Parts: sequence; structure tokens; C-alpha cells
Amino acid sequence: GEGELAMASVAPEVEKKEEEEQVVNPWEVSAGKGGIDYDKLVDQFGCQRLDAALIDRIARLTGRPPHRFLRRGLFFAHRDLNEILDIYEKGDKFYLYTGRGPSSEALHLGHLVPFMFTKYLQDAFKVPLVIQLTDDEKFLWKNLTVEESKRLARENAKDIIACGFDVERTFIFSDFNFVGGAFYENMVKVARCVTYNKVVGIFGFTPEDHIGKISFPPVQAVPSFPSSFPKHFSGNDQLRCLIPCAIDQDPYFRMTRDVAPRIGYQKPALIESRFFPALQGENTKMSASDPNSAIYVTDSTKDIKTKVNKYAFSGGQDSVELHRKLGANLEVDVSIKYLNFFLEDDDELERIKKAYKEGRMLTGEVKQLLVTVLSEMVERHKRARARVTEEVCNIICYHIHLVLYI
Amino acid sequence: GEGELAMASVAPEVEKKEEEEQVVNPWEVSAGKGGIDYDKLVDQFGCQRLDAALIDRIARLTGRPPHRFLRRGLFFAHRDLNEILDIYEKGDKFYLYTGRGPSSEALHLGHLVPFMFTKYLQDAFKVPLVIQLTDDEKFLWKNLTVEESKRLARENAKDIIACGFDVERTFIFSDFNFVGGAFYENMVKVARCVTYNKVVGIFGFTPEDHIGKISFPPVQAVPSFPSSFPKHFSGNDQLRCLIPCAIDQDPYFRMTRDVAPRIGYQKPALIESRFFPALQGENTKMSASDPNSAIYVTDSTKDIKTKVNKYAFSGGQDSVELHRKLGANLEVDVSIKYLNFFLEDDDELERIKKAYKEGRMLTGEVKQLLVTVLSEMVERHKRARARVTEEVCNIICYHIHLVLYI
Repeated sequence: GEGELAMASVAPEVEKKEEEEQVVNPWEVSAGKGGIDYDKLVDQFGCQRLDAALIDRIARLTGRPPHRFLRRGLFFAHRDLNEILDIYEKGDKFYLYTGRGPSSEALHLGHLVPFMFTKYLQDAFKVPLVIQLTDDEKFLWKNLTVEESKRLARENAKDIIACGFDVERTFIFSDFNFVGGAFYENMVKVARCVTYNKVVGIFGFTPEDHIGKISFPPVQAVPSFPSSFPKHFSGNDQLRCLIPCAIDQDPYFRMTRDVAPRIGYQKPALIESRFFPALQGENTKMSASDPNSAIYVTDSTKDIKTKVNKYAFSGGQDSVELHRKLGANLEVDVSIKYLNFFLEDDDELERIKKAYKEGRMLTGEVKQLLVTVLSEMVERHKRARARVTEEVCNIICYHIHLVLYI
Repeated sequence: GEGELAMASVAPEVEKKEEEEQVVNPWEVSAGKGGIDYDKLVDQFGCQRLDAALIDRIARLTGRPPHRFLRRGLFFAHRDLNEILDIYEKGDKFYLYTGRGPSSEALHLGHLVPFMFTKYLQDAFKVPLVIQLTDDEKFLWKNLTVEESKRLARENAKDIIACGFDVERTFIFSDFNFVGGAFYENMVKVARCVTYNKVVGIFGFTPEDHIGKISFPPVQAVPSFPSSFPKHFSGNDQLRCLIPCAIDQDPYFRMTRDVAPRIGYQKPALIESRFFPALQGENTKMSASDPNSAIYVTDSTKDIKTKVNKYAFSGGQDSVELHRKLGANLEVDVSIKYLNFFLEDDDELERIKKAYKEGRMLTGEVKQLLVTVLSEMVERHKRARARVTEEVCNIICYHIHLVLYI
């Protein structure tokens, strides 16, 4: 479609991505040669790098060490995070907004990343949190029924609750349950500010796409505005919003930030992560549709052991002799990447990396350590999820009159 | 835009209208030379003519004379009305759905036409009725705030209630108040079935239009499905729907009828009216933005007298002498057209038309009669509206848990 006037005039951002052979949008993440170029992404999206000074400031203000996802650059980009910290420093609060598209029964480790980080932010700043489950989006993009989308949303809510959010400060909602009233008013206000050409430019929609897709971006935009939750925030309409998410969600919030001042609202701030790699390697996001690409929170220790041993891409050498001599290539080794996400102890991580890189540790030994770390984490999650009763789920998800403790 | 590939490929219906110099869609009604060609419209839209046999059948089934709007061909087209009558004949019920975009404080006589006719249908068939006030649409298309759109919706609701609907069988709702739950689920189901190209073809949207417009058609579509009102119709999901409306709303329901079977729903049936003429003549719909083009339900008898005498286009001759000799041209005379809508007595109407046509009655005399008919109707409406308390308005508009009596 490059020769067509319509494409050339309406989809500059999309075309740019194609030239660069790197496509990152909410529905597609595909790297060019050499994996995702996050630096290029930051420049292309126009967000800011999360530097050491900002991380130090977070640590100072919260009085606790920065989360390992910050220490290790896994959350690496932001928009207006400094403003959120200014507000907090003055003694005011903000709220957190994150979400998930409930397309699968069980979550995998990549899905847990934003929720683990959001829990840290909620604990560290003591702030309210809204979590959107976009069951309408999954109905629109996947071949699911409304009922199945809603059922998956509820199952996913239980896994999210198991991450340990503060019950008095957290509201989880499914769009099919919650769209209406002030939330719908804000959807319509946003929609009036965004042309079809604009969403084509941002999201790459085509004229053959159904209007459900074209109608959806305002749904994901409006949880950025506290007035969408008049009961939960009891009219505190200027409360600032911080959104922790993977960087593929940035297009939604570029649009949201563009619209916000035109409808009298504050722009949401963002803090954005890299993608969690598939077992097979760094080049793409984990995929819920290929069970061997991911470790699920429902996997047994045996499953985890098998998957890690069989599929986790190794940066080690082909023979023990060669490995002892040359050492591992940490840049491509998935076990090291996973430990980077989930092994809390910095010193231990450095020791492992050094020994593996110098050939003193073998891939099998690193994988054995990883299996231990992941199994403990998954077992802990399973125990927490078993404690999530229907009642607790109802309190967080359906008590829509709950005022959040700010 | 005729040379552009995009327009040529996506908007065949719109282009066809341009060639014919007659544009009829929900936001624009403009006639070619010689006024709206309703025959052409029926063929173009693909609806059916409402013939004498069908009108006789309505009279027979309801045991009452057909409404003057039927007798005089003012409701002149339909879709599947015969199926609705089949259902009724077998002893089953259906429901009525009509609506209004609340763009002005006061209604004019043209606005009353579908409500008067809907009241007749409700009384004659004893069926439930839902009335949609598209305050979201007016926010999206006009330069109104959400609050103003909602306020106009409520004011308009009172005028609609004053038309005398059966309180136990009627639900009036504003979209801003009611969108959500099962209604939103149906909106998303419809949206998934309609491409952007399709809405461009049906409604003439352009890529510079905001996505609020593109998102709106499903909102007007889904009141056609009883499952959008699970409480009101208490799960009676196969209840058929009949929509009385002016023919400019046909595009919405062409789209709706196209989608319905694909999502497991019944197609709505329609019964469609001609446009109520402006005082200045037949060539267009009355316009709420030119107060001298219309008689409002808030006008005093003096206002009505002034407007009719000053603006109602006359088919009479330039001098009394010439008029006595040649008589009036009834085809273009607005007073006759208005009497055709509102004078109940067929014999009296025929007597007036004959005398006027033969020059025995003068324009001034016809206008005096019209002023009497309209003033009585407007005064009756004012008295009825004064009796519409906030409480009654709340019962019909906001008691969303009301089960409608079927």
C-alpha cells in the first residue's frame, strides 16, 4: 500500500516503523536484526530515558532501595516521572493505573512483570491503583465471545490480586462491567479530539478494520483521568496519574497526553519497561499462544525444569572444554536475562554472571539456579492465588462504590 | 474528492447521492430541484412502500381506524412491517424503539411527528417502548458540553412524556446515563461487524472526521436488540422491534439489519415517515437553528399567528381576483401541508382543499384555520408538559430497573 495517497498521507509513523524493520505497537512487537533497539524506540516515541539521577531520587523519596527492575534498567523510559516525584515531594499523592488484556487463562512471567513493579510502586508511595482488564479489546481483536472474554478477565483478576496489592487502595475492573457513566463521558470527550487519520497514524489501522478497533483507543485512554472514577476518587479530579507499563503501550498514552489538555485534564505520566524475553531469545515478547515460549504461573516445578533445560537459549559454548576456555556470551543467554529479572540479590547475580562469563560456571549450573528461583516464585504465586477467594475478588473487582484510600 | 481512489472505492452510496443532487442522511437532508424525491429514496435505500393493503391490515388487527399519518401517506415506507403484523396476529408482542437527538431546548412540530405516531402505535398495539435520547451524538456533532447535552436531553424528555406515553410500558434514556453493561456489550458486538469502509459508505464520514463519529453508529443500533435492556425486557431476547422514524434515520438501521443475523439477533422492522416541511416550503426538513422556519411547542398563539401569516409559503395567487379565477396550487402550499399533518377530520380537510383549489377560499382563510388547529395542539401540549413533574420524569427516565409491561 505504499503507493497509495491515503497511506502516504495518513500513516507516517507506521511507515517509518516499516523502514526501520522494527514494529512496536500494542498488538505487534517484532524486532529488526539484533533485537529490539530500545534507544531508537525512545527517540521514535519521544519519551525520556530513566537515568540514574531519577532512580536515586525515587530511592531518596521513598526511603527504600529502588526495585531491581529499576536498578537493572528493565524499566528504562518515562514521561513526566519527575513531575510525579515533585508532587510526592510536596506531600501530595497521585494514583497508579495499569492493565491487562485478558487473552489467556493463565499468566506467564512476562505478564507478572508490570504487576510486580506496580505493587512495589504502590507499597513505596502508598498510593491508590486502578487496573483495567480490557475484555472488550480482546473480544474485538481475538475470536472470543463476550462471555469468554469476561471469564478470562475474572480469572486473570485473581492472578493479579495474588501479586499482593493493597485491598483498600486497589480497584480492578473489566471494561464490559465498568464502561458507563463518567467513564463513558470521558471516552466520548476523548473520541471527539482524535481523527481517524490520527489513529491510523498512531496504531496503523486500515480502512478494512472494523470500527470496534477504531473505537477502542479512548477506552484505554480514560483510566488516565481520575474523573472517570468519580466514586473511587470522590471528585479528586486533578489527582495526577502514573502508568507503569511495557513500552508497546506507549501509543495509547501518546494519544491520551495529546488530548488531555484539550479537555481540561492532566496528562498521565508513564514509566515504561523493556519486554520480557521468550525462552527462545530476546527478539520478541513472550507469546501466550506458544506454551513452550513461556513459563506460566500454573507450571509445576517439573514443567519449569523441562522448559528451562530444553528451551532457554544458551550463550554457553558447544563443549565443556570450549566453554571453560571462552566462557558464555551473556548478551544472548536467556537464563541470565531471567535471573536479571527475578534474582533479587545483586551480589549473587554479579557473581553468577562473572563466573559464567569466565567459563567457571556451565549453562546447566546457571539453569539449575534459575529453575530454583522461578519455582520458588511460581509456588509462592500459586499459594497466594489459592488464598484469593471469590469474595475477595468481588470486593476488588465489583464493589464499584468503594472509595479508594488515597 | 471524486478523483481520489479512496473516495471512489469506499463511498459508493455517498457519491450516488451527489450525482442525484439529493442528500439524505442523519445529519443532512437537502433536496434536488423539485423537492425530496421519496420514490427515488425508497429505491435507493432499498426499503418497501407502505401500501393500502398493509394499512388496511393494521386497521383490521388493531380494531381502530389507521392514524391520519397512515391514511395520508405521511408514513410511507417500511421494512418487514408485515412480519411484525404476523407476530401480532399470532397473539405475540413486539416493542417500539424511537429516539431523538437533543440539540435544542424546545421541540418544534416536526419533532413531534414521530412521537405522536409512536403513541398511536403504542396505544393501538399495547406494546412497550424505548426512547433513546442521543445526548452523546449531539455532544459529538455540535459544539455542546456534556452537561448541556444532558440537560437538553432531560428537557426534551419532558416534552416527549407530554405526548402521553404509557408510563408502565415506556423507558426513556439518555446515552450518557445508560450506556454500559449489556448495552455496551451489544455496542461492541455490532462494532466488530462493521468496517471503517462500510461506515464511510453508509454515512459519508471522511478520514478527517473524529473517531467519536465513527464510534457512534453502534450506539444508535443496539436499542434495536431487546438484550440491550436485560432488566426492562427481563431476558425476553427474541422480542421483535419496530422502529418508527423519519426516513433520514434509515442508514443506521440498514447497518443494524445487516449486522443483526451475524450476532444472532433479529432484524428490527421499520416504519418510516416523510419530512415535516419548513414554513418556507417543502424542499427541506424544519431546522431547529432558524426559529422562523418552524413552530415550536413553546410558541404562543400570537407567535403562531405571526409565523403562519408571515412565513407559511402560499400556493394562492397574487391577487384576490386572480385567485378566485385560478385557485391555489396545493402542491406547494405549506398551510395545506400542515393541515394534512394535523387536522384530524378527513372530510373537513377535503372540503378545505377543494374550496381552496377552486379559489373559493383565500390563503388568509386557510391560514386562519391552520392557526386555530396549531394553537389548540400547542396549548394542549403545554398543559400536558406542565403536568410532567420531575418525579414522573425520574420514573420514566432514571428508574432503569423498571421492568416494562409487555
